[in-house]
Amino acid sequence: MAQLADRRINANALIDEMVQKSRAAQSSIGKSNFTTRCAALQTAAAAIREQSVAILDANTQDLARATTNGISGAFIERLTLDDARIESMASGLEAMIKIPDPVGAQLARWQQPNGLDITRISTPLGVIGIIYESRPNVTIDAAGLCIIAGNAAILRGGSDSQLTASLLATIMGDSLEAVDLPRDGVQMVPTTDRQAVGAMLSAVGGIDVVIPRGGRSLVERVQTDARVPVFAHLEGICHIYIHKDADPEKARKITLNAKMRRTGICGAAETLLIDKSVAGDLLEIIVADLTEAGCALRGDVAARSLVPNMTAANEVDWHTEYLDSILSVRVVDDLDMAIAHIGKYGSSHTESIITESHHAADRFFAEVDSAIVMQNASTQFADGGEFGMGAEIGIATGRLHARGPVGASQLTSFKYVVRGDGQTRR
Amino acid sequence: MAQLADRRINANALIDEMVQKSRAAQSSIGKSNFTTRCAALQTAAAAIREQSVAILDANTQDLARATTNGISGAFIERLTLDDARIESMASGLEAMIKIPDPVGAQLARWQQPNGLDITRISTPLGVIGIIYESRPNVTIDAAGLCIIAGNAAILRGGSDSQLTASLLATIMGDSLEAVDLPRDGVQMVPTTDRQAVGAMLSAVGGIDVVIPRGGRSLVERVQTDARVPVFAHLEGICHIYIHKDADPEKARKITLNAKMRRTGICGAAETLLIDKSVAGDLLEIIVADLTEAGCALRGDVAARSLVPNMTAANEVDWHTEYLDSILSVRVVDDLDMAIAHIGKYGSSHTESIITESHHAADRFFAEVDSAIVMQNASTQFADGGEFGMGAEIGIATGRLHARGPVGASQLTSFKYVVRGDGQTRR
Repeated sequence: MAQLADRRINANALIDEMVQKSRAAQSSIGKSNFTTRCAALQTAAAAIREQSVAILDANTQDLARATTNGISGAFIERLTLDDARIESMASGLEAMIKIPDPVGAQLARWQQPNGLDITRISTPLGVIGIIYESRPNVTIDAAGLCIIAGNAAILRGGSDSQLTASLLATIMGDSLEAVDLPRDGVQMVPTTDRQAVGAMLSAVGGIDVVIPRGGRSLVERVQTDARVPVFAHLEGICHIYIHKDADPEKARKITLNAKMRRTGICGAAETLLIDKSVAGDLLEIIVADLTEAGCALRGDVAARSLVPNMTAANEVDWHTEYLDSILSVRVVDDLDMAIAHIGKYGSSHTESIITESHHAADRFFAEVDSAIVMQNASTQFADGGEFGMGAEIGIATGRLHARGPVGASQLTSFKYVVRGDGQTRR
Repeated sequence: MAQLADRRINANALIDEMVQKSRAAQSSIGKSNFTTRCAALQTAAAAIREQSVAILDANTQDLARATTNGISGAFIERLTLDDARIESMASGLEAMIKIPDPVGAQLARWQQPNGLDITRISTPLGVIGIIYESRPNVTIDAAGLCIIAGNAAILRGGSDSQLTASLLATIMGDSLEAVDLPRDGVQMVPTTDRQAVGAMLSAVGGIDVVIPRGGRSLVERVQTDARVPVFAHLEGICHIYIHKDADPEKARKITLNAKMRRTGICGAAETLLIDKSVAGDLLEIIVADLTEAGCALRGDVAARSLVPNMTAANEVDWHTEYLDSILSVRVVDDLDMAIAHIGKYGSSHTESIITESHHAADRFFAEVDSAIVMQNASTQFADGGEFGMGAEIGIATGRLHARGPVGASQLTSFKYVVRGDGQTRR
């Protein structure tokens, strides 16, 4: 216990020092102009390309250690960099500088009867903590978004990607320094000690928000332990609901795309709801499309009575984000039952109603409490780039501050600027 | 310890049950139309007037018990209701229904090249916990704002105002019921056990945000202990900065108003900064104005060398929210020194620069990191009503979600509505 307490004290001291440096750096970065911040990202993009051999070398060492530690499968896949992924980090930074300056934007302006002129202006959010797992590219993606919005980033990567992620963080720091911004604007926690995560989550007033990027267990741990605010990106249990007034062709095309375009992203559909009045005609065709594409189906009793060659779906299925070529299927009585199902089992991420009825769509939009609600579109559009926001850190499923795609604009706060001419209050 | 554990279990069970009721109620209130929510507030306003005798009676009992418990001074003053305060609660509710519907507002709309039509729509925030101290009127003010924005409120008032606050919460519940909304939309925690506060602060996923309304110690305790998000309203250490290009008449008038109009509100100025190049001419006059109005002054060495009859200000003064007829005064070299002073000692609430130089004002606006920055206006305008937002719960000094005056619009979230015509993603 004494040793644990010592580690905690050390971790707190470490994070405290990093936070102080980060706040000082953020103060400069927040006041810098957009051109300078863009130049930092451009410099980093060039450096990533130039240092690709060194990055791959660091990554090879991380991979060797991870393999020795018995790690395998999807984790190794996420940890692995190659030329394409390195280019993707560089071009990702270049894409970030193509959006309008997220800082200093006039969000609203009005005059009061006494002549006060009030403007709401976007400002940097401050110091952002990013806690992530094996993907080393999060280092660049997250740090780039933080910097372009005038923030500082404190990164805590997974222990298995430590060498790769540290090198990438160093490149970001060098690039800040190259344009005369403080390199402490991007800092990597230099230890894999878990106490450091605890210290970050307790840094009230020092870290303005923590963004966990990783699997459900990481996000839940962060949410449970955090005393600082969290932008949580929980799972995407996304629904396609085929309403009785659906266009059958749109229903087929969208369901197939929403499930099978990429099964591993959070915007992939996991459950199909279909009105019983159209299921008799449509379900068999849709199941055939999906089966042909390699999708396994799990249906409720009504669905299986229409298309017998489905596995039975149970209660667990409605709660499951498969992230795989599996779709659960439920036949519903009507819009009310579909909305109730989504309210009970959904994860407030993205749901799409397929219907030609604007009245039904409007009820769906109003009554489904998800970050993104769609009509006649694939749930796979749940993405900052597809929304025209540029790069994103993920899709926030909470209701505070950021909701839906979290891009640079969502990493800002705001202030009120009040211009007067000598007004005093009565 | 066993007893404490039992109480914690009971408190958790109690809050858990309240949260479940609250979420169910919020689901209805969030979908209700604005007219219905307005009718609920109108009904409550009428009921408050009708039941004023009963309210005053409950308040008399609370006051008697508080006095028996040895409580006195400002606390008793805040606890005390009279006819004017009762009318103020009723008219406050009526003012809330004069703003546009904060729910369902189109915040942004754009089209993507593929034809997707994306709208960002305001939605209720969810379940809001309000933790407050002695002022019973917070029951009505906070619950009213929550309801008008489609939210549900879980209220936890101070133990000394329990009878009054419970009656007021009952009136709000009755008024919801009168318009066929669920009365659980406003619930009062029926115990003064402190464990209930802890349970509220831990209700991640159940309570969407907690708003503490009270003194610094309450706010700090909530911030330290909360696992749920908090809209913190910390103190207002507000600054008036008289720049070298100030209009002397505006400087006099605004300083006097910012300090002395009402000294007990968070927007009252606590520190005057003045450029040394104009202090020689101006400071003596301003000090005379303030002294005549009954204000005590505490100056730094330079200020006292100009106006000797001031007490010496020390380091503590720069950090102090007096909420009283006291002003600290510091002579600064220039704009940079003023900005640095505010950065070091301010509370990110409201600061005003007095200057005719738009260049200086723009630098002040950009570099002072406060919720509200002003030019040539009194800091006492830091108020939702004065900003044209209607009623407010307070001035948020954090950077997440709500900043500055927290009115009904700040108690909303948003969602994205995406309308397509069969689009699938490549």
